Amino acid sequence: MTDFTQNIGFLAAILTTIAFMPQAIKIYKTKSVKDISLTMWFIFSVGVFLWLIYGILIMSIPVILANIVTLVLSLFILFFKIKYS
Amino acid sequence: MTDFTQNIGFLAAILTTIAFMPQAIKIYKTKSVKDISLTMWFIFSVGVFLWLIYGILIMSIPVILANIVTLVLSLFILFFKIKYS
Repeated sequence: MTDFTQNIGFLAAILTTIAFMPQAIKIYKTKSVKDISLTMWFIFSVGVFLWLIYGILIMSIPVILANIVTLVLSLFILFFKIKYS
Repeated sequence: MTDFTQNIGFLAAILTTIAFMPQAIKIYKTKSVKDISLTMWFIFSVGVFLWLIYGILIMSIPVILANIVTLVLSLFILFFKIKYS
């Protein structure tokens, strides 16, 4: 794999991980969750949890780290969706 | 890699791909996007696009297919967020 390819992969992983922060901050600030899909965040959280298990099984530190961060943000959004609904 | 590990990976990929469908359907039905973070879906769409490029560069069909579906759903949500704001 070239450095270019690996850098594209790293950048992709960083962006699809930090992307959830602005949504989490928005919900925390506004306490408004009407337009947020409960089903999306429930399915997504289960999926990210399985990615984390997969990362542990294949012993991939990048997969484990990225999915721990995403799982925390995803569960945060899911928790506030339920709390404020 | 064991079959169990591979199946966990497949299930994780399927869940984190289809998760975006209920959010897309909700927005399409309600035309309400107030609580949706524009920043999240913009960063996420760029990230998924880079995952797609990465999949093409490493010639991984599962990475390419999963990210085409996710990119379509993500751009759909981003488009309606901008249109209805």
